[in-house]
Amino acid sequence: MKLPTDPAANLAALIRCPSVTPAEGGALTALETMLKPLGFALERPVFSEDGTPDIENLYARRSGNGPHLMFAGHTDVVPVGDETAWTHPPFAAEIANGEMYGRGAVDMKGGIACFIAAVARHVEKAGGPKGSVSLLITGDEEGPAINGTVKLLEWAAGKGEKWDAAIVGEPTNPDTLGDMIKIGRRGSISGSVTVNGRQGHAAYPQLADNPVPGLISLVDALLHPVFDKGTKDFQPTNLEVTSIDVGNPATNVIPAKATATFNIRFNDTWTAETIQAEIHNRLDQAAGRKKYRPGKKTPVDYELVWRDRPSHVFLTRDERLIETLCGSVKATVGRKPALSTSGGTSDARFIKDYCPVVEFGLVGQTMHMVDERVALADLETLTGIYQRFIEDWFGQDHAVG
Amino acid sequence: MKLPTDPAANLAALIRCPSVTPAEGGALTALETMLKPLGFALERPVFSEDGTPDIENLYARRSGNGPHLMFAGHTDVVPVGDETAWTHPPFAAEIANGEMYGRGAVDMKGGIACFIAAVARHVEKAGGPKGSVSLLITGDEEGPAINGTVKLLEWAAGKGEKWDAAIVGEPTNPDTLGDMIKIGRRGSISGSVTVNGRQGHAAYPQLADNPVPGLISLVDALLHPVFDKGTKDFQPTNLEVTSIDVGNPATNVIPAKATATFNIRFNDTWTAETIQAEIHNRLDQAAGRKKYRPGKKTPVDYELVWRDRPSHVFLTRDERLIETLCGSVKATVGRKPALSTSGGTSDARFIKDYCPVVEFGLVGQTMHMVDERVALADLETLTGIYQRFIEDWFGQDHAVG
Ligand SMILES: [Zn+2]
Ligand SMILES: [Zn+2]
Repeated sequence: MKLPTDPAANLAALIRCPSVTPAEGGALTALETMLKPLGFALERPVFSEDGTPDIENLYARRSGNGPHLMFAGHTDVVPVGDETAWTHPPFAAEIANGEMYGRGAVDMKGGIACFIAAVARHVEKAGGPKGSVSLLITGDEEGPAINGTVKLLEWAAGKGEKWDAAIVGEPTNPDTLGDMIKIGRRGSISGSVTVNGRQGHAAYPQLADNPVPGLISLVDALLHPVFDKGTKDFQPTNLEVTSIDVGNPATNVIPAKATATFNIRFNDTWTAETIQAEIHNRLDQAAGRKKYRPGKKTPVDYELVWRDRPSHVFLTRDERLIETLCGSVKATVGRKPALSTSGGTSDARFIKDYCPVVEFGLVGQTMHMVDERVALADLETLTGIYQRFIEDWFGQDHAVG
Repeated sequence: MKLPTDPAANLAALIRCPSVTPAEGGALTALETMLKPLGFALERPVFSEDGTPDIENLYARRSGNGPHLMFAGHTDVVPVGDETAWTHPPFAAEIANGEMYGRGAVDMKGGIACFIAAVARHVEKAGGPKGSVSLLITGDEEGPAINGTVKLLEWAAGKGEKWDAAIVGEPTNPDTLGDMIKIGRRGSISGSVTVNGRQGHAAYPQLADNPVPGLISLVDALLHPVFDKGTKDFQPTNLEVTSIDVGNPATNVIPAKATATFNIRFNDTWTAETIQAEIHNRLDQAAGRKKYRPGKKTPVDYELVWRDRPSHVFLTRDERLIETLCGSVKATVGRKPALSTSGGTSDARFIKDYCPVVEFGLVGQTMHMVDERVALADLETLTGIYQRFIEDWFGQDHAVG
């Protein structure tokens, strides 16, 4: 039986499944076809929640006698955008000038295709890893992310699954394969601050209480001073005011309330709780300071609401995992990757509660764009890195998970 | 023939005409019925403009040999609001506890009713003023104000009409009849300032350019320092930020632009032109200062748009007009009124281009509210003041207009 040792063939099969989030599109079934001959046991749990689409997921485990490695990823892809702008159809996997075109080519069907090829080559060459390998694949990473990785991890852990390390196959390299491994992520939290005033006529400001100057002073306190200068492993914490909204169309009317919404990306100087406390403190101080309200006797009347759940900051400290992956990259491309915690959140923030996790995949430049594509050479190189990593990581003396 | 000497009867007839702007509602016809027996020549010009309703107006002149006094006002009224909340129907002119209820009772059918009663009493008592008296009544003061006073003044002036002084009968008294004469008004001007940035992901602020901090610094420059401390005749110039709008619902997205809208009420320290120049100057300085953008090399990219036409500031300096009206108030209620320039704009800002103008009418407390009403005693008092003013003003030695 032909094993799925060719990452380009694996990826072509996946691209041809139009799995635009939340549709499964045949992608998980295509994975089953690749994984069964490799000896994986497969499960396809479907998760539901009111107000979100049902999501199909895949958990595949090849059990062995040794430590347990998880590879995590997603087969759902973002919409194609302006399909007429693509030089090759987004679900055709056409190859031109050594590159394969298609939605998901790098984010992240390509990463999955390479990992499966790496396992297949190991099986062909050496009978497969001596420990256990699992693929934890969700169809809900690009969507609401409610019925995906979080529930899949809970579901697997509830069945007794334990992992010793995990790799997420997201496209982590900015320019060239081997540039960057992600070993953590900043936290993220969003909130809205609303200042309550009193509506009135612009000609009689003394009878009204314009909330805008108060909100300006609160926003100023959110923006200054800087939260920190960054740490050894992380960029500085950053706050962006993503919207300010009053919605008053009448220029002769003083509005009753004004709201600013903000997002913070915070490093390991903080936890979600301490950064929330800092924001509360800044707002309280600014609200009492009355800097912008010389005529007002009362502090700014504001309300702070945190939106959604925070994403917690994390940093992976498993030197063996990190060093093994770095060594695999170095052995394959000849240089050491940067260890980074930059960028947005990823599903690694959920996995880190179960085992040490790093992220390494393809080059992300065309992700989410028209003409998303991947160099065939990169597919070969990433397959080589993953295979080397499997060999080295399982070859070491690990505690059994 | 019974002359319209009773202001309450005049007002009741007007309130019973449901002249909610822009409807004439029979109100101008009711005025004709009152004015014809007093010897007024009447014209009912209708003005039109694309995009606004046609408006009926009234110009009534009682010609004599002497100076020419204009009384200006409007018969249109604002909507009744929650009609069920009225204790007496809004178009019934019912009287309870010495007060007449109805939409327009004080703003400003009551002022018109009193002025007509004052002329009627003068006619009955002394044959009428020796000069000319005109009523310039529009049906478009509470609406867009396009087809009202401005066009009526142009139309009358185009026919050769000239006036020596004008009284606008708006409700100028805050608490008690006789409190306040308006002898000028602040100017008013509105604008919007938009900061252009570059959209991006909140996790990659270095690839985006958030317009919010720049807008905050511009708004700060609009609010500080104060424009002036007020003048002998005017309150301080005041700027209200009436709205800030970004409209970005995604907390992980840095927005592309942010807009603040503001309204300035300016005193005679400024003209519309100089206050506009001041705003431009403040914004240019703040945009270049980069106070809130420590990491940015370029100044804030902003755009300023002035909205509508400015209302020009004015102050009436006709001592004879002002002193005669003050004297009439003092003689009737026993105290001198305050001379004020406070509050919003009024049609006096258009009349001041034709002749000196002051404003004096009823007590404004219930204007635009549910249960708008006027004390019958106030109607008598205001009629007395207007009558005394007519006697005194025409009794003096004026140049013929
Ligand atoms: Zn992805
Ligand atoms: Zn009015």
